[in-house]
Amino acid sequence: MYLNENLKKLSQNYLFREITDRVDNFKTDNPGKKIINLGVGDYTLPLCPTVVDSMKKAVDEQSKKETFKGYGPEEGYLFLREKISDYYKTKSVNISADEIFISDGANSDIGNVLDLFSSDNTVIIPDPVYPAYVDANIIDGRKIIYVNANKYNSFLPDVPNKKFESSIIYICSPNNPTGATYDFIKLKRWVDYALETESVIVFDAAYEAFIKDTNLPSTIFSIPGAKRCAIEICSFSKIAGFTGIRCGYTVICKDLEFSGTVLNKIYKRRLVARFNGVSYITQVGASAVFTENGMKEIKKNLDYYKQNAYLLSSALKQKGIFYTGADNSPYVWFQCPYSMKSWEFFDYLLNNFEIVGTPGVGFGKNGEGFFRLSSFGTKEETELAAEKILKL
Amino acid sequence: MYLNENLKKLSQNYLFREITDRVDNFKTDNPGKKIINLGVGDYTLPLCPTVVDSMKKAVDEQSKKETFKGYGPEEGYLFLREKISDYYKTKSVNISADEIFISDGANSDIGNVLDLFSSDNTVIIPDPVYPAYVDANIIDGRKIIYVNANKYNSFLPDVPNKKFESSIIYICSPNNPTGATYDFIKLKRWVDYALETESVIVFDAAYEAFIKDTNLPSTIFSIPGAKRCAIEICSFSKIAGFTGIRCGYTVICKDLEFSGTVLNKIYKRRLVARFNGVSYITQVGASAVFTENGMKEIKKNLDYYKQNAYLLSSALKQKGIFYTGADNSPYVWFQCPYSMKSWEFFDYLLNNFEIVGTPGVGFGKNGEGFFRLSSFGTKEETELAAEKILKL
Repeated sequence: MYLNENLKKLSQNYLFREITDRVDNFKTDNPGKKIINLGVGDYTLPLCPTVVDSMKKAVDEQSKKETFKGYGPEEGYLFLREKISDYYKTKSVNISADEIFISDGANSDIGNVLDLFSSDNTVIIPDPVYPAYVDANIIDGRKIIYVNANKYNSFLPDVPNKKFESSIIYICSPNNPTGATYDFIKLKRWVDYALETESVIVFDAAYEAFIKDTNLPSTIFSIPGAKRCAIEICSFSKIAGFTGIRCGYTVICKDLEFSGTVLNKIYKRRLVARFNGVSYITQVGASAVFTENGMKEIKKNLDYYKQNAYLLSSALKQKGIFYTGADNSPYVWFQCPYSMKSWEFFDYLLNNFEIVGTPGVGFGKNGEGFFRLSSFGTKEETELAAEKILKL
Repeated sequence: MYLNENLKKLSQNYLFREITDRVDNFKTDNPGKKIINLGVGDYTLPLCPTVVDSMKKAVDEQSKKETFKGYGPEEGYLFLREKISDYYKTKSVNISADEIFISDGANSDIGNVLDLFSSDNTVIIPDPVYPAYVDANIIDGRKIIYVNANKYNSFLPDVPNKKFESSIIYICSPNNPTGATYDFIKLKRWVDYALETESVIVFDAAYEAFIKDTNLPSTIFSIPGAKRCAIEICSFSKIAGFTGIRCGYTVICKDLEFSGTVLNKIYKRRLVARFNGVSYITQVGASAVFTENGMKEIKKNLDYYKQNAYLLSSALKQKGIFYTGADNSPYVWFQCPYSMKSWEFFDYLLNNFEIVGTPGVGFGKNGEGFFRLSSFGTKEETELAAEKILKL
């Protein structure tokens, strides 16, 4: 049997598993101590009441013959796609419902959209980066070029000097792990580069709801020309705590075409072949996010996390530690004190302050010497962590 | 941009879309007439009460901070995988929980498992066949060899005379669309062939719950050696009406290895890279299927459909029409009367008897002159259809 040899090229020491192992060891050695976990990017607040109520009603519908729904449209129910289309209008961007594809989460679609492209395309990925972009492209056997994100460009890399024709470019803004967020001018440089090189930007906007600064673009489609070169991938995980519910959406505008092939159309055909849509109950819940009450409740949760991020970044600022993120992102990314390496600082923080974070080097070589803290913990834990940071 | 040119090779006239168009035209031309739809393979009975109750409880859990669950294990929750492992024990087959991967449906995993294999492998697919096998492999650019299923082998094709080394072999039993079900001896020939040629069988067991004849294998793992050459894909859609809920499972035993690479292990790694698991609520619902009450309620639904299948096949038998399926499958597959072609009979049946079915040719060239009726309609509609068939 000929196996996909690329699968063996995936890194075997998965970041979060290594963290879990070290934390478990710490717990065994220090049975009494309480750990503050600001490591993972997972929600801790429960689903909003409006979402919960709508999902219960949807379960009820599935229990009665008259309202039972079997297979739904592969691209998602129109009622949800229309709500998302309206959400884009609040950002002054026109996206029609048939340019939106409902997915079972951003992580899945990061890989799924690659079915559109040949494995001969080069991939441009910032370093450090969320591992899923790299992994999905390794599986397909594409050549990856890394662009450096570092302290000198505030972790917002500019376009390469060299024109890499026909590339797949991954941009995540607000960024995971660095929290850094592109402004209009810097993002436009990427859109112009993509148009010039016949490339496609896969824009991961999973954290768009955390943007506070209204001058920053929360969708790539705010940039002129982006509809002709970008695919946007979004998630209900971070806007509404759907990490355990699994729902996202992907926007492929009808303007995105190469040599007369409209990507929206062939992606639709790909969906019919390889996907049977997302749970009706889930889609009803996602739709409730966009109601007046849903939005109000969600804003409250987002504010809670934003306040946490502020607490963490304020402490770092007081200590004079370089950081990015926090202002428009749930993540705070900072330089490890005492010139420590990432894992060294991980152990230091765990052993001396019982705080668990994420070593920056786990996201790429440029992450070495950096560290990520997440605002998804409780307020109480985050306050305690901020106090401890001041004692560093 | 280099696109995946294989996407353009997918057939554009999708079977069920064509059916919908013709039915819509009929409705426009015949506004008063009521249509009996035995075309699609979609459930019509609602979810069982036990499943509904458990899902509501799960939604409640997601609404409280203490019980909220975010990201779950990529491979699915242990509580569900253990239930499935126990379900296999009732079939006298030992599958451990860590050999089971929970998916968002069989259709997705039919394509997902292909990530394990090089696109250099040949694919062996019976004709006629459920279109998803063909489509997923066209997207990856694999060479497809069809084996003929026809009246002479009762739509259960035997292994090819030629030894195609390193193939991916698709078997669906009970079959969609033909309803034909392999017996132990015939299925063992495929397992032996796969072992001999270093091939992998992708066994689609989505309809296993419809098998009445206890002498027929309802899992490929009943066949000695299958753990070393087969992947089994199952679904809650057909056992429990999860078509709109989206849940399935895939079994890759630890015995399945090539040159020391254990496929179970690399598939797990692939999941971590490309999937964030299935909704907790969905998994709780799927788990309830295997409770005592759940099983009782599901059996009632399955019996309802089985009775429908019996009604249809009895009418065909009385008319002396050749058919397969029905006895151990929700589908009845039969030769079109008067030597009609599939689409010709489709129009005949629609225009004269207001019955909608599925033209066999839509599943492959060997389906020409054959027709599929599904038992997923209501009892009343099916009785009416059976009466009309007697008047053919």
